[in-house]
Amino acid sequence: MPTHNRHNFSAAERRGVYRAIYERRDIRSQFLPKPVPDGILGRLLDAAHHGPSVGFMQPWDFIVIRDGAVRGAIRDCFLEANRDAARRYKGERRRLYGGLKLEGILEAPVNLCITCDRQRQRGAGLGRQTDPATDLYSTACAVQNLWLAARAESLGVGWVSILDFDRLRELLGIPARALPVAYLCVGYVSEFPAVPALETAGWERRENLARLIHFDRWGAHDDHRASVLAHVGQAVSLRTEYHPVHASEARTRPSNRRRGRKATE
Amino acid sequence: MPTHNRHNFSAAERRGVYRAIYERRDIRSQFLPKPVPDGILGRLLDAAHHGPSVGFMQPWDFIVIRDGAVRGAIRDCFLEANRDAARRYKGERRRLYGGLKLEGILEAPVNLCITCDRQRQRGAGLGRQTDPATDLYSTACAVQNLWLAARAESLGVGWVSILDFDRLRELLGIPARALPVAYLCVGYVSEFPAVPALETAGWERRENLARLIHFDRWGAHDDHRASVLAHVGQAVSLRTEYHPVHASEARTRPSNRRRGRKATE
Repeated sequence: MPTHNRHNFSAAERRGVYRAIYERRDIRSQFLPKPVPDGILGRLLDAAHHGPSVGFMQPWDFIVIRDGAVRGAIRDCFLEANRDAARRYKGERRRLYGGLKLEGILEAPVNLCITCDRQRQRGAGLGRQTDPATDLYSTACAVQNLWLAARAESLGVGWVSILDFDRLRELLGIPARALPVAYLCVGYVSEFPAVPALETAGWERRENLARLIHFDRWGAHDDHRASVLAHVGQAVSLRTEYHPVHASEARTRPSNRRRGRKATE
Repeated sequence: MPTHNRHNFSAAERRGVYRAIYERRDIRSQFLPKPVPDGILGRLLDAAHHGPSVGFMQPWDFIVIRDGAVRGAIRDCFLEANRDAARRYKGERRRLYGGLKLEGILEAPVNLCITCDRQRQRGAGLGRQTDPATDLYSTACAVQNLWLAARAESLGVGWVSILDFDRLRELLGIPARALPVAYLCVGYVSEFPAVPALETAGWERRENLARLIHFDRWGAHDDHRASVLAHVGQAVSLRTEYHPVHASEARTRPSNRRRGRKATE
């Protein structure tokens, strides 16, 4: 039984993993101009490179974008796509949408485009015959590794999905075989908000986990058992275990801030 | 500058994040029958539920599968798909393929099917007009959260991608609007191998990260700079920083094992 050997994490190491998961945010408004050292950026890329991949295919490439002119052109690409996207909404939703900040392309000192090479020969196709999308999933998992490592390094990441991807491909010279999966803004931040920006803005709320759990078959819900599972999970996410300051306390008790306790936002 | 405030991780917390990233393995052969307590499973599901999602869509559902008959039917589904997949390889590759263990459906006490509801209304479509695949990427990121949390809890996870997914959908009663993204085996393990099983088996090797880094534009390689980035990253992955035992040492020094030091494999 793996209870007392070197495979196990210490309490602090385990807390680090859960902190990264729960305190990770999609950052758009809080970027600082402070440069990201190559040493830290290298760690993030290597974390991504150690993502799981179907057949050990490692289908990813990383374009590191610091050039201001390139970022400017990509920002224009965002602005146009965002105008089109805004037209889809009416009334209150339109008003809400207009108030959202959805990228930090120019504020963040580093941008990253992470692609998936659909024709990479590594892995010899293992695991891809039955689901050809698995290489895309692998690339998304690599992105998540990078995002969590960034949080551990106090770096914020924002994923920009409102782009004309054909135009992005042109701007970055990406060949047809490689699909841009993620366009990320990376930089130090003034703060990590306690809750997702889309929740603060009233755009959407977090679903109750218990409603998303099925047992042995789709639709086979068991309210009691699902609640137990979700409740235990939430005990972690609400930081009763790994952090003394509760996220909602940070919001309802401004005195914490006045005392200089910046809590976990 | 975020240098000495509560946003920052302690050295041990940061080490936990990198340990999870580098010591995560796709487990097939090492599962133990020891049950996974609901409390721990709940943490894993909540970790997944805190994955990033486009527009805060949270497109995932979780089917928790413990029933032996259901797992048996899914194992049969794997066996058939695997026979078909094996036919694709010839000669030495075929021999190698035949020796690979690619699932632990029956050995692992818990299986999870994580789906993506392509029609979920949460998020009101934000970020999806320009790339409709972003909901799938969100679901894959949720899987990676779960995988890393599992590693922190000393639980192994294996992602089975060799399945007839239409048959799986039938077996689990998954409606047409939901796509099975990941089928996972979850359980305690006898060990976490130091290197991926596909590397040990001679199926594939890890690519040199430096070759995957481009600067400002696809194809704009800078060998020196890329090597610096990759080298710094590797310093972390080779555990010189966060762990006293070097992965390659664990392999080349069997005496470590004889002394009862199970290292990090």
